[in-house]
Amino acid sequence: MNYRQRYDAYLQAFNEQLAACCDTYLPLGSQVNEAARYSLLAGGKRVRAVLCMAACELLGGSADQAARFACAVEMLHCYSLIHDDLPCMDNDDFRRGKPSCHKAFGEATALLAGDLLLTEAFEVIADAPVSETARVRASAALAHGAGSAGMVLGQELDLRYECQPVGEETLRLVHRNKTGALINAAVQMGASAAGGSKDDCSLLEQFAYDLGLVFQIVDDVLDVTSTSEELGKPIGSDAENNKTTFATLHGPQGAMELAQQINAEACGRLSRAYGERSEFLTALAESLLCRRT
Amino acid sequence: MNYRQRYDAYLQAFNEQLAACCDTYLPLGSQVNEAARYSLLAGGKRVRAVLCMAACELLGGSADQAARFACAVEMLHCYSLIHDDLPCMDNDDFRRGKPSCHKAFGEATALLAGDLLLTEAFEVIADAPVSETARVRASAALAHGAGSAGMVLGQELDLRYECQPVGEETLRLVHRNKTGALINAAVQMGASAAGGSKDDCSLLEQFAYDLGLVFQIVDDVLDVTSTSEELGKPIGSDAENNKTTFATLHGPQGAMELAQQINAEACGRLSRAYGERSEFLTALAESLLCRRT
Repeated sequence: MNYRQRYDAYLQAFNEQLAACCDTYLPLGSQVNEAARYSLLAGGKRVRAVLCMAACELLGGSADQAARFACAVEMLHCYSLIHDDLPCMDNDDFRRGKPSCHKAFGEATALLAGDLLLTEAFEVIADAPVSETARVRASAALAHGAGSAGMVLGQELDLRYECQPVGEETLRLVHRNKTGALINAAVQMGASAAGGSKDDCSLLEQFAYDLGLVFQIVDDVLDVTSTSEELGKPIGSDAENNKTTFATLHGPQGAMELAQQINAEACGRLSRAYGERSEFLTALAESLLCRRT
Repeated sequence: MNYRQRYDAYLQAFNEQLAACCDTYLPLGSQVNEAARYSLLAGGKRVRAVLCMAACELLGGSADQAARFACAVEMLHCYSLIHDDLPCMDNDDFRRGKPSCHKAFGEATALLAGDLLLTEAFEVIADAPVSETARVRASAALAHGAGSAGMVLGQELDLRYECQPVGEETLRLVHRNKTGALINAAVQMGASAAGGSKDDCSLLEQFAYDLGLVFQIVDDVLDVTSTSEELGKPIGSDAENNKTTFATLHGPQGAMELAQQINAEACGRLSRAYGERSEFLTALAESLLCRRT
């Protein structure tokens, strides 16, 4: 299978499990569940899910073993988007070209839908058909990446620094927590499903944080070089908010060069450690670097 | 030890573990963590924590074994209060006689503090010093009680029915989910720590839901018979909102008689199953029935 075929195979396995998770954990007949499904099933690249399954395969497990964990990490990611879009946070009316959750369902329902997705992510993990060791490790990894040492801290730092100029170190710290920590959780959950060793986990951790950084740099660049139609969300919002980004620090071209360099080092390390087996993950990293949306 | 001494011993064990949890999972230096601590350490009766530890002891475990799970359930309860107080939900300015979290820290920080407590509750469970089986069971129980088959569903039903008259069956359904499900999660987590059997879990489930119902009926009665100073929150709000409660359905006295009857049956069943070992839990039920705040 080539890269695209393998990505699609992961997506298919993921989508099947996600539909099953919706049936069990977000049953029809409730507005909050409907709102959660509206956001969860709105698509997206499912990068975190694919990373979770690919990390599991890299370490000798099967994608299926990690598919429920992949659902959990996407549920968690989705909660963070719903809450992030709320009026008291970024106050975004659109997400992936559709009205954001609170625009479609009202604030109270959106708040609860986010709470629900966060909660059910952990139920999905606890019920997953893998060993108890894997489930405990995955639950710890997800909570750690999403909480006070990860995503929530990142959100706080983002709010704190959004309207003031910051240096590169601070900017990296924000994104390491806001984006990197959950990407790391995704690969660690995949590693848990495969029973990965400590060394495997360390290697994957470095790769995940580098990938997250590249992802964010490219995001910043697309915000100044892309169109609103391409992205399915308003562009130029960073500049409007006077926000420091990698694009303002280095210029769009300088930022892309930085991303290329980080990406090359990250892929080199993974490839030296795992040889051919790392091909999918390095191709995925490459595709995130070169994406247009 | 008499009832009060045993309650205080549970509280002491709980408070020690909660302080340790704050150090590890809500470290100082962050506004969001500070907001989470502000609400989490505001006190309260800690009924869910005590139930968790007492259920563990009832089934032959030690209170210490369940103390981390007790912290998790109180963290989860606290998140629900913070989000419930937000302007888009109940819009309450006070909680336990102090400004509610968003009044003290702003809406964005309060939202994140709630998200954080919910997230870290699951990290506390995943890291708890008990068997992996116990941790997986506790995590499943907490997520199940807090999610689409429990508390979040209860919140949704509460919002749906808050401004229209409902019958007794609907009222019970709302409270079963909104209050009962998390009380049940607390005792199930305690049972997990002790390695309780399926029969134990069923018995405790029925007891927990009855206890939750009694708790709610008494709440409704206090809202019409107590003073704002006694409760530390505004009273009469149910009547003001034209809300159906057990007090409006049965009158305050009729509601109390119903509560006494449910309580007597629940305690009778527990006592027949566990004899003297159930004494603490039945005394706790009695104290919730007779409480003035």
